[in-house]
Amino acid sequence: MTYCVGLRLDEGLVFMSDTRTNAGLDNIATARKMHTWERPGDRVVTLMTAGNLATTQAVVGLIDERTKAPGERIPSILEAPSMFQIARIVGRTLREVIDGNLGDGEALSASAFGATMILGGQIAGSEPRLFLIYPEGNFIEAGDDNPFFQIGETKYGKPILVRAFDPAMGFEQALKLLMVSFDSTIKSNLPVGLPLDYVTYTRDSLRLGRQGRIEPDDAYYGEISNGWGEALKLAFGQLPDFAFPGD
Amino acid sequence: MTYCVGLRLDEGLVFMSDTRTNAGLDNIATARKMHTWERPGDRVVTLMTAGNLATTQAVVGLIDERTKAPGERIPSILEAPSMFQIARIVGRTLREVIDGNLGDGEALSASAFGATMILGGQIAGSEPRLFLIYPEGNFIEAGDDNPFFQIGETKYGKPILVRAFDPAMGFEQALKLLMVSFDSTIKSNLPVGLPLDYVTYTRDSLRLGRQGRIEPDDAYYGEISNGWGEALKLAFGQLPDFAFPGD
Repeated sequence: MTYCVGLRLDEGLVFMSDTRTNAGLDNIATARKMHTWERPGDRVVTLMTAGNLATTQAVVGLIDERTKAPGERIPSILEAPSMFQIARIVGRTLREVIDGNLGDGEALSASAFGATMILGGQIAGSEPRLFLIYPEGNFIEAGDDNPFFQIGETKYGKPILVRAFDPAMGFEQALKLLMVSFDSTIKSNLPVGLPLDYVTYTRDSLRLGRQGRIEPDDAYYGEISNGWGEALKLAFGQLPDFAFPGD
Repeated sequence: MTYCVGLRLDEGLVFMSDTRTNAGLDNIATARKMHTWERPGDRVVTLMTAGNLATTQAVVGLIDERTKAPGERIPSILEAPSMFQIARIVGRTLREVIDGNLGDGEALSASAFGATMILGGQIAGSEPRLFLIYPEGNFIEAGDDNPFFQIGETKYGKPILVRAFDPAMGFEQALKLLMVSFDSTIKSNLPVGLPLDYVTYTRDSLRLGRQGRIEPDDAYYGEISNGWGEALKLAFGQLPDFAFPGD
């Protein structure tokens, strides 16, 4: 299982992903699910992936290869004129891999070999943009009404995002929010796990922002994880108790 | 969709269910998902259902009918010697309905016509017990390590239960906790909705406790729903912000 979130803030974009991958509960490993490409001054592209690991690695591998040797049919994401076109390239590549059109004649079933992706970035001359790409290769874009996307095991961590997200928050606050959301997920679902990768992108900077990995022994994460449990109990205690009608 | 929770407290048992039922997003109605049977001084039984409404209504109907006219093969839950035997009866009845062994020769598929149930209650001379019954008709029991069960749309509302549940809490606090958990679910998922039904059972009372329905305009629910959003934001604000390494 996987959990990844991409946030669209006034200040720019923030991405966080876990790194746990499993084929069954008894085969657990760590794999990077966050990938970045950068051409400083021109564009920054971040891609996070959830789903079948063979599929997602093939997609990222193909995209990356084409940035070095552009193909005839599908252009490189470093050449594409817009984030929208990059989303189309990623979607087409994903479909290509899922359909098994890799020349080996093998057809993959979308259900078992599917994947979902969050794509974000900016190209000089246009706005930062954030997309959610479906296994079918089509996609939707984040807007003021839906300013974040989640993929993978999304439900446990959604209520706090719905409640506390504010596009005006800074990166430090946004990363705190993401850690609370990840912690809620990790506490409820074993196959999502630390370490967590994050990357920020500052609007109009056209270069990658801060990147890092939160390791299982990270002191701040521990503080958030324990502190949030306490804070929740405190918040819960402050609400008025239920009173039975007539009491 | 549905959301139901059963809690095993030191004080007794608490149950809450939503009442929304839908066949597609454009066909939404209200249906009772909580059912109780009582023989004061001898036993109290509560059953909550999630899944195909035709299946769950058939199961409840059969169980109820047999309390009035016990069948030969399957005894009445009012005659069964233990909560464990009642869980077996409910499981068998559920299988019977899903398998379509109702004499009309129609076989139902478990996936589309499945249902999951929470069963709780007490029989004179033994402890209050709480069970989760699967579509296959088998079941598990709540214990000190897993003191509550959820069925239906369980994920959104789980983190607060994991964090704030305490078996020593009273019914008033437990109902507050359930309303927070239901509110998190309702805020994230449209097909779970008010009104909410609740019932409490006080250990060794051997009669039904408090029952009620939380209507959409319930003042206390509104207070919890708004208050919880504020309390969450406050709790979130009190946690230390993330600081980038080296800052």
